[in-house]
Amino acid sequence: MNKPIGVIDSGVGGLTVARELMRQLPNESLIYLGDTVRCPYGPRPREEVTKFTFEMVDFLLQKEIKLLVIACNTATAFTLELLRENLTIPVIGVIEPGARAAISVTESKEIGVIGTIGTIESKAYPEALHHISKDLVIYDLACPQFVPLVERDQFSDEAAFDVVENGLLPLLGHQQLDTLILGCTHYPLLHEPIQKVMGNHVEIISSGEETAREVSAILSYQEMLNESETAEKHRFYTTGSKVVFEQIANRWLDQPIEHIEEIVIDQSLDDK
Amino acid sequence: MNKPIGVIDSGVGGLTVARELMRQLPNESLIYLGDTVRCPYGPRPREEVTKFTFEMVDFLLQKEIKLLVIACNTATAFTLELLRENLTIPVIGVIEPGARAAISVTESKEIGVIGTIGTIESKAYPEALHHISKDLVIYDLACPQFVPLVERDQFSDEAAFDVVENGLLPLLGHQQLDTLILGCTHYPLLHEPIQKVMGNHVEIISSGEETAREVSAILSYQEMLNESETAEKHRFYTTGSKVVFEQIANRWLDQPIEHIEEIVIDQSLDDK
Repeated sequence: MNKPIGVIDSGVGGLTVARELMRQLPNESLIYLGDTVRCPYGPRPREEVTKFTFEMVDFLLQKEIKLLVIACNTATAFTLELLRENLTIPVIGVIEPGARAAISVTESKEIGVIGTIGTIESKAYPEALHHISKDLVIYDLACPQFVPLVERDQFSDEAAFDVVENGLLPLLGHQQLDTLILGCTHYPLLHEPIQKVMGNHVEIISSGEETAREVSAILSYQEMLNESETAEKHRFYTTGSKVVFEQIANRWLDQPIEHIEEIVIDQSLDDK
Repeated sequence: MNKPIGVIDSGVGGLTVARELMRQLPNESLIYLGDTVRCPYGPRPREEVTKFTFEMVDFLLQKEIKLLVIACNTATAFTLELLRENLTIPVIGVIEPGARAAISVTESKEIGVIGTIGTIESKAYPEALHHISKDLVIYDLACPQFVPLVERDQFSDEAAFDVVENGLLPLLGHQQLDTLILGCTHYPLLHEPIQKVMGNHVEIISSGEETAREVSAILSYQEMLNESETAEKHRFYTTGSKVVFEQIANRWLDQPIEHIEEIVIDQSLDDK
């Protein structure tokens, strides 16, 4: 099916998912929408995140996407079920793939999850994990300092290490913990300091790779893979500055962005 | 949904998939059927493999399975599409998950595939790989000596190494090859000698783990995970000797088999 895959995120974090989709599904084309101007979603109440997410989805549905990826953990936690009920196309979130990957690698069955305040308070990860396997000990922790670091493009600064170390302190006492889920699509950019702080005995699970594999599985299972010889160009949209978005995207993705546009979704709902 | 997952294989090889299903989906129960008496399927013609596979499927459908896993590459290559057309439950083969995993790890885009004569001649792997990504170089190789080694329980003998080394010789010239798919569910038992012969720069992909993750994804996506507090016991059936099957199974699986039965499917079709 020669239609694009839609990807939404609160900002640039979902680009870690987009990169894996491009790598694992090179015949497919993407339409990415990052709500940069209202980012971060993490500290916002459920109702607001739901409203914003549905606005993004409406924009993508007009572009005739064949499958929707919610590449934002907070939006997944709050809206996945609602979207699945309301949309006729498949909807894939980032939480279940991350949970599944963690279950497949843990030996000790003690799993850590870090994410935004919204994601952690929603308890979406413990629910997804226990839904699949009841026999798990889960330590979850909100790290609200991490997203701003990444969106400000400061994730490789030396100061980033201190922020990460301070943020992860509460997890360091759990010596049986052998798997840590990065429950926010921004966090893979902080992979190096997170691995360093946690130690090499802890396997870091990034939902981007896992989500891309599940998208591939669902498209294939539903016989919706692109069968034509050529794929359309990927298109990127941001509610924020096109210049900043492009700058970050060109550094994160393995290929330069060819089509990028600034759009307005609904400024009246912007409470900043 | 409190119904079992059905797993079929030509013999004991599919136990590598069953083990991963048990590990990754501990709330689910399995019904496994190994057609040991007619194993191996690899050198048999397509019509015969199809007949045998449908006989196994009929047996499992009577047990009211909710999803079918074809844990045999030869049977997947020959019957997956046919089964999907004819069954109302989801049918998952082992080829697509292995292909997807290989695409997600290769850097050089040069991938090796080893399997039975039937699987290799069917070209099912190159097709599945190119279906997802056109830009790949694929080297496939039939290794008909490997399955008998495993079914005879001689996979850890020293002689096994020589058989593996001889079998893999044709692949060793491809220096850019960085990923090798074990396109037969028996081969993970030979993981150690295969890794040694190929070298540590080659990532070995075993379809068991990948298939289990896709089963988890599809069950979850279709809202078919077991929601009840308890799962039924796993049940194992073999068309061959229960004693030999149990002996191998108890060594491969992380838990002892509680229910095992010898059954007859259709001896008239047995041409041995």
